[in-house]
Amino acid sequence: MFESVGIVAKQDDPRVAETCRALIDYLHRRGCAYHLDTGCTAAVPEAAVPGRECQALAASCQLVIVVGGDGTLLRAARMLVDHDVRLLGINLGRVGFLTDVSHREMTASLDAILAGRFQEEARFLLHAVAVRQGVALAESDALNDVVVQKGNVARLIQLDTFVDDRFVSSQRSDGLIVSTPTGSTAYALSGGGPLLHPALNAIALVPICPHTLSNRPIVVGADSRVEIVVSPDQHTCALLTCDGENVMELAVGDRVVVRKKGRGIRLIHPPDHDYFATLRTKLHWAKEL
Amino acid sequence: MFESVGIVAKQDDPRVAETCRALIDYLHRRGCAYHLDTGCTAAVPEAAVPGRECQALAASCQLVIVVGGDGTLLRAARMLVDHDVRLLGINLGRVGFLTDVSHREMTASLDAILAGRFQEEARFLLHAVAVRQGVALAESDALNDVVVQKGNVARLIQLDTFVDDRFVSSQRSDGLIVSTPTGSTAYALSGGGPLLHPALNAIALVPICPHTLSNRPIVVGADSRVEIVVSPDQHTCALLTCDGENVMELAVGDRVVVRKKGRGIRLIHPPDHDYFATLRTKLHWAKEL
Amino acid sequence: MFESVGIVAKQDDPRVAETCRALIDYLHRRGCAYHLDTGCTAAVPEAAVPGRECQALAASCQLVIVVGGDGTLLRAARMLVDHDVRLLGINLGRVGFLTDVSHREMTASLDAILAGRFQEEARFLLHAVAVRQGVALAESDALNDVVVQKGNVARLIQLDTFVDDRFVSSQRSDGLIVSTPTGSTAYALSGGGPLLHPALNAIALVPICPHTLSNRPIVVGADSRVEIVVSPDQHTCALLTCDGENVMELAVGDRVVVRKKGRGIRLIHPPDHDYFATLRTKLHWAKEL
Amino acid sequence: MFESVGIVAKQDDPRVAETCRALIDYLHRRGCAYHLDTGCTAAVPEAAVPGRECQALAASCQLVIVVGGDGTLLRAARMLVDHDVRLLGINLGRVGFLTDVSHREMTASLDAILAGRFQEEARFLLHAVAVRQGVALAESDALNDVVVQKGNVARLIQLDTFVDDRFVSSQRSDGLIVSTPTGSTAYALSGGGPLLHPALNAIALVPICPHTLSNRPIVVGADSRVEIVVSPDQHTCALLTCDGENVMELAVGDRVVVRKKGRGIRLIHPPDHDYFATLRTKLHWAKEL
Repeated sequence: MFESVGIVAKQDDPRVAETCRALIDYLHRRGCAYHLDTGCTAAVPEAAVPGRECQALAASCQLVIVVGGDGTLLRAARMLVDHDVRLLGINLGRVGFLTDVSHREMTASLDAILAGRFQEEARFLLHAVAVRQGVALAESDALNDVVVQKGNVARLIQLDTFVDDRFVSSQRSDGLIVSTPTGSTAYALSGGGPLLHPALNAIALVPICPHTLSNRPIVVGADSRVEIVVSPDQHTCALLTCDGENVMELAVGDRVVVRKKGRGIRLIHPPDHDYFATLRTKLHWAKEL
Repeated sequence: MFESVGIVAKQDDPRVAETCRALIDYLHRRGCAYHLDTGCTAAVPEAAVPGRECQALAASCQLVIVVGGDGTLLRAARMLVDHDVRLLGINLGRVGFLTDVSHREMTASLDAILAGRFQEEARFLLHAVAVRQGVALAESDALNDVVVQKGNVARLIQLDTFVDDRFVSSQRSDGLIVSTPTGSTAYALSGGGPLLHPALNAIALVPICPHTLSNRPIVVGADSRVEIVVSPDQHTCALLTCDGENVMELAVGDRVVVRKKGRGIRLIHPPDHDYFATLRTKLHWAKEL
Repeated sequence: MFESVGIVAKQDDPRVAETCRALIDYLHRRGCAYHLDTGCTAAVPEAAVPGRECQALAASCQLVIVVGGDGTLLRAARMLVDHDVRLLGINLGRVGFLTDVSHREMTASLDAILAGRFQEEARFLLHAVAVRQGVALAESDALNDVVVQKGNVARLIQLDTFVDDRFVSSQRSDGLIVSTPTGSTAYALSGGGPLLHPALNAIALVPICPHTLSNRPIVVGADSRVEIVVSPDQHTCALLTCDGENVMELAVGDRVVVRKKGRGIRLIHPPDHDYFATLRTKLHWAKEL
Repeated sequence: MFESVGIVAKQDDPRVAETCRALIDYLHRRGCAYHLDTGCTAAVPEAAVPGRECQALAASCQLVIVVGGDGTLLRAARMLVDHDVRLLGINLGRVGFLTDVSHREMTASLDAILAGRFQEEARFLLHAVAVRQGVALAESDALNDVVVQKGNVARLIQLDTFVDDRFVSSQRSDGLIVSTPTGSTAYALSGGGPLLHPALNAIALVPICPHTLSNRPIVVGADSRVEIVVSPDQHTCALLTCDGENVMELAVGDRVVVRKKGRGIRLIHPPDHDYFATLRTKLHWAKEL
């Protein structure tokens, strides 16, 4: 099924080494070809194979295993989105929404997955472009969320939002989150947004601490074009971030255009994976039926 | 475009008469055939035409105008859903989410609509069936929401929820709202649910005052089969309601199965209708751009 | 310190027997006089002492130990509030906000408490009177909360609220919770109310699913006189409950007057009790510093 | 009653001039001595009296009238808190929580106030000190709120909170608001905090977008010592602000100690002032009884 497997490891985390070693051993025993990214070779120097850039793994691997937390998988997803590889996430102790395979169950899960028994989910990404006076200044992809938020200031910012060129609202707030279903369990949830089932083709616009209390999260189709304008009425700057990483500082009048990215990722789960079970565990819901 | 127009009026509201009279005058002047429901003939006895049941209007009318509030349109929608008529809502003073035409703008709006210039929106309904020991005891349609809530008791109820036969959660709460996009501006919003754009094929499951604070609203595809079981762990009864009307009292072990109804309604708006403008007005959002 | 100890046990719960037996054994070994309520003698028939009504324990006991959950302690507190006894809560497995002593740590805790080493907290109660046309129809005490909520109906109710005879708001909602600090971790929390530190002399007015989204919880001084009027504008009835138990059905125009009760209870904790630690455990907050 | 009146005006707002002029005229006609701050003389240069610093007004004035928005009054309050003057706020068009006198009703209100008919409210302030390795680096007062929030970063910060030296919680969030009753209608409200009646001697700790959904606002006595530690577990910096103004950037390990300030302000209102009426207007609550 998978001729060659890539391993991408979280950087600068000592817990990674043991899991990567076990993973390499496992693949070696199974006679499965593998390639390592530089995070993995740094953690397991005795592997004695050259580490590659994450994107380079895509050329030869049909499956990329990400060892780390959800943040590691978010980064790998953004780097590999244009290649048609499958992604599998293995966590280092605490189950993640994306890295849902425990390192303890890793071997059993891989037995099934390499035998072709797995679940595959398409997850879409967003693409954000920041535009100043008609010129695109920066762009970035996001698997979780595109956020326009206040920068290093104590004041609210004012944002005008448009969906498919229709004016939605002019809000004073700490910012606005545009979240995918994948991101709906991340920052958007802390901001009061709803959980969106991963199979939904929808995005949530979640205001952060809006001044007007009725400025509630709104869910629109994922094919909508969302435009956020830093309002000329306010003097402070704003910050554009994608998946929690800074993209650029925005000035008054700047526009951020958010669209669904043409390509998505293929997320792999063990055959017994259950989205709702992960929700119950992560959100401390009552477990018993 | 519309050979014959029906008028459905809110019952027992004295404000209805004037608007209905103006509407009948208007249709008369335009030479447009019209039929009245019994609510309308009660309000305008001098109309001197026989009042019909709401459903009976569907046989001869291609457009049904509802005069009243959103509650009146909800009832008309449930009664007319199996016929292929279009619905237009005229409010009596305060704009509604569904009855978005003001009685003051009624004539201008109808000029456009009867000339074929209007917006048409498909809105889907839900169908709920209450099942006890394998036997369907009651069923009902809902344009806004299907709700299982505690009855005349002070205690929480416990509900087990399933989506497409997968266990979602077992929650103690005041109840659970299953809301369409249409209902997302109604009870579900008071319960903390998100706004769902009317074009979304999605439903929101919104817990009412859940005991577990992380039991947040979840949005799933509208084609999902939602099943809510009154948990055998609790002794108090629950209430099944559709669009705010009682359907039946539920006992421990009863199941409510909610599915998207095969047919929806066709909601008509004036050509300049803007969903987000209605949101801004109804929710007291800042109006200026 | 305590010449005689009373034991009040949750009724109809098989888990009570073992803890009550251990407790009786312990008191017997220590040579401490004890009296049992009827719940306790029902659970431990071999105790061979006559069970008394809960209130009757107050005559001879300076300390009443409540075995059960928070609900059991709430009931005992309401019954014993007019007597000057101290209350200690022992839970049956899951720590409660009020029954914070585990049955496993019971002996060690009692060693300290009977030796005079304990924390004592004053907790105030509310007193609610329902008035119809000037006549008091029902009254009740509450340690957690007084709630006016919709009865067996799907519709919102409309309530007018006054604090010290000043009009606060007229709200359409599922109801209104008047909560003590003790109750702020109970129903009021599910309704979106804040946590109130037990030492605060304050009460929270928490609207349940209010139609107007800005109808937020408001905290006022506990010596305020709160009056809730079932609005004449609505046709459905409401329900008055205290600590989750039905008091009476309210009709349109009925008034509920809520005041702080003159007497409170004295809640006993082991010397190492920590309110915030209980919060962290019960609310699944991150435990580590 | 008031021998001399001071006027403090919002800076750089053209709307100030007209109100200040009318106010000066009014005081002149009444033969009331007045002094102007530099904001006022900048707006009304023809007043031909020397403008003073805000604090300097306190020496000779028993009443200081603030013309502007709530932000202007917040600043004046912090500057005048150590002097025993009374403060009256006049807004420029939109009623504020603190500047509750409309410029249209100004004359009538002042007639009553100068005749000794007014309401006086004590409002307390907070005092925040930022401590690094035992050394106080910065301090500031706040009438609304002391906030520790993430700075120019997209990541959550981790804060450990203590009340009276007891550990409360370790939370990952966008920040933590410590709010007075006065501030409970400001940023804390946007963050999900409760309304606190101005007469309450209490403060609210309101987490901003906490990662753990059960990290809810908590209200404690205003005499509590609140300590917030920027957790050593995280690498990003945080920002300390008071009433929305930057105080300093905090590093990992820094502590912010918040206490109630010894002196408060005396806020003056017209005799018919009603706190709840202001709430109803500002929060768009239904107005009718």
